[in-house]
Amino acid sequence: MTTIDKTTLEQVRLGVVGLGGRGSGLLSLLLNMDDVVIPAISDLYDDRMEKNADSVYKKRGYKPDTYKDYRQLLQRKDIDGVIIPSSWTVHAEIAIEAMQSGKYAAMEVGGASSIDECWDLVKTSQRTGMPCMMLENCCYGREEMALMNMIKKGLFGELIHCQGGYEHDLRSEVSNGIVNRHYRFRNYENRNGELYPTHELGPIAKYLNINRGNRLLTLTSMSSKSRGLHKYIMDNMGPEHHLASVDFTQGDVVTTMIKCAHGETIFLIHDTTLPRPYSRGGRVQGTKGIWTEDNASIYFDGISPLDQWEPFKKYMETYEHPLWKWYREEGVRGGHGGMDYLVLRAYVESIKNQTDTPIDVYDTATWMAVTCLSEESVATGSTPVVVPDFTNGKWIDRGQPLPGKYSLDVIE
Amino acid sequence: MTTIDKTTLEQVRLGVVGLGGRGSGLLSLLLNMDDVVIPAISDLYDDRMEKNADSVYKKRGYKPDTYKDYRQLLQRKDIDGVIIPSSWTVHAEIAIEAMQSGKYAAMEVGGASSIDECWDLVKTSQRTGMPCMMLENCCYGREEMALMNMIKKGLFGELIHCQGGYEHDLRSEVSNGIVNRHYRFRNYENRNGELYPTHELGPIAKYLNINRGNRLLTLTSMSSKSRGLHKYIMDNMGPEHHLASVDFTQGDVVTTMIKCAHGETIFLIHDTTLPRPYSRGGRVQGTKGIWTEDNASIYFDGISPLDQWEPFKKYMETYEHPLWKWYREEGVRGGHGGMDYLVLRAYVESIKNQTDTPIDVYDTATWMAVTCLSEESVATGSTPVVVPDFTNGKWIDRGQPLPGKYSLDVIE
Repeated sequence: MTTIDKTTLEQVRLGVVGLGGRGSGLLSLLLNMDDVVIPAISDLYDDRMEKNADSVYKKRGYKPDTYKDYRQLLQRKDIDGVIIPSSWTVHAEIAIEAMQSGKYAAMEVGGASSIDECWDLVKTSQRTGMPCMMLENCCYGREEMALMNMIKKGLFGELIHCQGGYEHDLRSEVSNGIVNRHYRFRNYENRNGELYPTHELGPIAKYLNINRGNRLLTLTSMSSKSRGLHKYIMDNMGPEHHLASVDFTQGDVVTTMIKCAHGETIFLIHDTTLPRPYSRGGRVQGTKGIWTEDNASIYFDGISPLDQWEPFKKYMETYEHPLWKWYREEGVRGGHGGMDYLVLRAYVESIKNQTDTPIDVYDTATWMAVTCLSEESVATGSTPVVVPDFTNGKWIDRGQPLPGKYSLDVIE
Repeated sequence: MTTIDKTTLEQVRLGVVGLGGRGSGLLSLLLNMDDVVIPAISDLYDDRMEKNADSVYKKRGYKPDTYKDYRQLLQRKDIDGVIIPSSWTVHAEIAIEAMQSGKYAAMEVGGASSIDECWDLVKTSQRTGMPCMMLENCCYGREEMALMNMIKKGLFGELIHCQGGYEHDLRSEVSNGIVNRHYRFRNYENRNGELYPTHELGPIAKYLNINRGNRLLTLTSMSSKSRGLHKYIMDNMGPEHHLASVDFTQGDVVTTMIKCAHGETIFLIHDTTLPRPYSRGGRVQGTKGIWTEDNASIYFDGISPLDQWEPFKKYMETYEHPLWKWYREEGVRGGHGGMDYLVLRAYVESIKNQTDTPIDVYDTATWMAVTCLSEESVATGSTPVVVPDFTNGKWIDRGQPLPGKYSLDVIE
């Protein structure tokens, strides 16, 4: 990033582009922050804008301006940052325009459609000096941050292998996507790959110092057949329903293996159209220990009883991340166990302090890129594909990451 | 297989080639079978032969002949089958010679060194009419067989994805391998791949009807760096120990993705040189449900409480495989929870009834091949490699598998 002015803002003025379920949720979290003002919001649908403008009014006593065309929102000079919880395929282009208009960009999670749009994000950020942050809430999860703390303290030894997944039965959500104006449906109807890697890859990338002394080198992906959505529609909507003839291209289970520059491996699994309880399928494994999410257990060589798992909870409490210690004392708030608030707050404080964001444009581009790279690999029979180095070699020695309460790289 | 004579043998006469820890263990199980006679045994080491010949004498009152050169054992006419718990890299060549000498071959588990030796197994079996069975004990595990029963009864719906692993901390065993004349050491010192796939792949291949209407198409493998063994040696033997300078090539974690002809995917993990409790990391996932081993849980759509795992144990008892029902009534015996006895018994009964074996030469060749294919993929940067069709197209319509109490394809 180019140097950022060291002014500190008293108030942070944010626009929100995209007011579906996720946009509304993030907005209500922002409305609880006294130092945040929402001058304007944007969506393609009037009803969504009205509903959300009303929420702002009820909570804060003013009505934000509403824009069907987000470009008009971006033209305003009284906005410091733009939050983009729009549909997946327009995250990058809106973020690029936001940076071009001199605003901090914050994208909701999702994958890229092309490597080119990832490069555009990076180059726009470099040229404009404006940060671009993916709002990857799971980086701020309590478990993930405690693990980060244990990793930095050396409990796992040298990291060797990590796993994660997005294992979430979305059959109902996707099948009802057209009715609910939800973007997933059209993606599942047409694409095939690791569509949603960042909930697990974000924290893993931070554990492995990706883009700061390490990088993702290559990946290969494999897709199973697609059966879950069609069966769900047949069973629940019936063979006469117009969706019964949809040919979904997205495989039910897509697995991805990634190799890192320092020899670590990462395994990802995308599993969203078969019946199952939710999991992010986490695993962190090093020369001294292993944590696995599905049995909520941990094992440390020479510490745990030989060959016996111990409950992760005990270690999580002992190695609580400083941010979460503070947060639990202050009172945990907001969605998804509190991490939505933290990731938003990390973004807001970066604007306030006029610093770079703890998830920066290189992180954002790298994590998003996994989606289109995995599509490429699946399409070519699991051929390994190269993950671009969006830092152009700077990952080797990018210097110390920014310190600060919300840092994901430094434990203070 | 060519047609086998329908004679039924009253006694089965077996030779054992390879009398390390595993060979001795199998031999003592055989000594408890009244219809099995052991005319001869073979090993490279005299002490092992003497010790095992003594065991036979103590238990059964006769001493088997001993041969340093297994070829002499194979020349005998009074042997019906040869069990080969030798070191990995000679399983195939001994099995081939055993079939050539008109004997049922039974190999202990392990991977192949080349595709060529897999083809040789298949062609030798076809030419001689002698069966060749991999003694994959996990195919006869209680959990695995109950799962097979549930799969055949349709509880999982259409199968989509399976996982398994060999996740076993072998640092002590491998590091002490030279002292203990164990074959693993030299493999870990020189190879890099999915060295030991069959404990998990065997049952999965049976679930997915591999070589009977389905087949393994392609695979891709990735290896992490190698750190666990060196660190273990440094920590436990010291930097002055001669093993401290060994450059182990085998990555600590090797992951493999396999695509099947009918669109199912399989994920395998080989994880044997880092600290951890044992697991075979199983997962079976279909359109109606999912089982995962690490949390000992199962979930069936519309049966389990919404989004909640249920204990697998309950279902295992309800859907106990008929073989295990009988076995538990008879009394479970022998190593590894009883499955060692069952797999040996399956082999012995095939000889007695002069039928093919329930794990046949095509199964054996296909499962073993994964090892050298994964080495090839790792060596070429995770390039996808084609799994040979050892049936030469017969997998499409091989007809009904053999019925029988020990069948892994038919539930009676």
